[in-house]
Amino acid sequence: MPSPREAPSHLQEKMDEVREAVDKTIERLLPHTDLPEAPLFEAMRYGTLNGGKRLRPFLLMQSARLFNVDPKRARRVAAALELVHCYSLIHDDLPAMDNADTRRGKPAVHRAYNEATAILAGDALLTLAFEVLSDPETHEDPRVRCELVTALARAAGGHGMCGGQMLDLIGEREEFDLGTLSRLQRMKTGALFEFACEAGAIIGKGNEPHKKALRNYARDLGLAFQVTDDILDVEADPKLTGKPANQDGEAGKTTFVTAMGKEQAKMRAEMLVQQAVRHLHLFENRAEMLKVLALYVLERRA
Amino acid sequence: MPSPREAPSHLQEKMDEVREAVDKTIERLLPHTDLPEAPLFEAMRYGTLNGGKRLRPFLLMQSARLFNVDPKRARRVAAALELVHCYSLIHDDLPAMDNADTRRGKPAVHRAYNEATAILAGDALLTLAFEVLSDPETHEDPRVRCELVTALARAAGGHGMCGGQMLDLIGEREEFDLGTLSRLQRMKTGALFEFACEAGAIIGKGNEPHKKALRNYARDLGLAFQVTDDILDVEADPKLTGKPANQDGEAGKTTFVTAMGKEQAKMRAEMLVQQAVRHLHLFENRAEMLKVLALYVLERRA
Repeated sequence: MPSPREAPSHLQEKMDEVREAVDKTIERLLPHTDLPEAPLFEAMRYGTLNGGKRLRPFLLMQSARLFNVDPKRARRVAAALELVHCYSLIHDDLPAMDNADTRRGKPAVHRAYNEATAILAGDALLTLAFEVLSDPETHEDPRVRCELVTALARAAGGHGMCGGQMLDLIGEREEFDLGTLSRLQRMKTGALFEFACEAGAIIGKGNEPHKKALRNYARDLGLAFQVTDDILDVEADPKLTGKPANQDGEAGKTTFVTAMGKEQAKMRAEMLVQQAVRHLHLFENRAEMLKVLALYVLERRA
Repeated sequence: MPSPREAPSHLQEKMDEVREAVDKTIERLLPHTDLPEAPLFEAMRYGTLNGGKRLRPFLLMQSARLFNVDPKRARRVAAALELVHCYSLIHDDLPAMDNADTRRGKPAVHRAYNEATAILAGDALLTLAFEVLSDPETHEDPRVRCELVTALARAAGGHGMCGGQMLDLIGEREEFDLGTLSRLQRMKTGALFEFACEAGAIIGKGNEPHKKALRNYARDLGLAFQVTDDILDVEADPKLTGKPANQDGEAGKTTFVTAMGKEQAKMRAEMLVQQAVRHLHLFENRAEMLKVLALYVLERRA
């Protein structure tokens, strides 16, 4: 198993490829307009076409490859997923939520536009995601399109991402134990990771053991991602992450670092990544890129 | 054609029936929970089970009747639609948007809970609506489920309700002509009315002329609804509407009343309702309740 300190160049290349393709798809979904309500669409573009890593789309495209899915088709699902991720960032950054003025080194949507526009842009992006998934262009089988809508809605809703964000807000006032913190992160971050990895199997009509393996991989990877996020929050260079250092610690939030210490957190992330990789064994050497990605999550600097 | 000054008792009975049935469906979709993120679900319940008239579900149930749709099935779609309507009210009431402290005479969600919870509750309700529509329990034909998701997403998104709300915000700083104001209202209110009326035909696999007639009815009805809303804003008893008098006028917004005067606005509403009713001619006497409803919209006091 390779153990890179930096994202290896072939992973970086593949990630860049996915990023460009998904950005193009999002561009097409959100054309410029001169309608009087144009600021809404500009804010939607600003909040999505902002140089994100497109990690979730990457997972989705890799999972789709395992089932020989036409990349054009997978790309629309990847774009829909990214719209949901971006809407959640726009709403999370609002003053009433995390009150973050910047995102990826640039003013957050509510700073570049205003709060009302940011709320609406988030709402419209979430709505657009479901419009994209239910469109026959995404898949000719309406059963598959419905399954995608159901899976994304579950991942993003009250029992997934929104519920996780609610827990996160409660965590500003209450101290959580590790179990609750893990549950929070599984909902807040893990649910969309799980959708990303399972979606390839849904589009490619994979069987249940395949879906389960990908969900398990995603769950462990998502948790590892969050643990390393908490480590980066105290350790990383704000110039690389584009956000102030020790933001969560100063907000008094329980993080994996405050709950178990930095060294324990690092060991935990490593263990989770190893566990994630093991779930992929039934794909043999076809899931190499997902394995390499898991190691990159561990070693990333931003 | 009857011309009641008050909602006639058989309309009221039917509306009460729909309200009770849809409230029960929403109750089932949003059970109480003792999970740590329970405040999210309580806020979702608070923002939906609040004594609303359920006008959109009523339109949907009546449209479904025209196609002999099983009411159980239509009710789930009606509930999903109402979740979207309620999410939009929760977000519209936020301080950054319309800054309304009360809704139907009770504290708005962000006052009863807090702003962050209100934002998340809205997000989760919107997401839940699509989960409900894509569920096989809603319809056995996945093509119909997909068509419902597409239609609701279009009605609620940037080219529908969200776009209309954006225009509404722009209208606080800019004066609109009647054309732009009508377009705003068609997007903000009309789009969900159109979905409500077309959905019955989608579920019941009606033909395109039927769908078009229902969309046209809904468009004129929606506009009439908004014109009477603007008249009620200056005329109605705050005790009946549950909101302060002349809220829009004082916010400096262009309304049908400020743009054309109260008397002209009343004539316009009447004309729109007559036009709405005429679109229903191809259903002959089977659409009686939709006709009666149109007259009620004109005559309502709250």
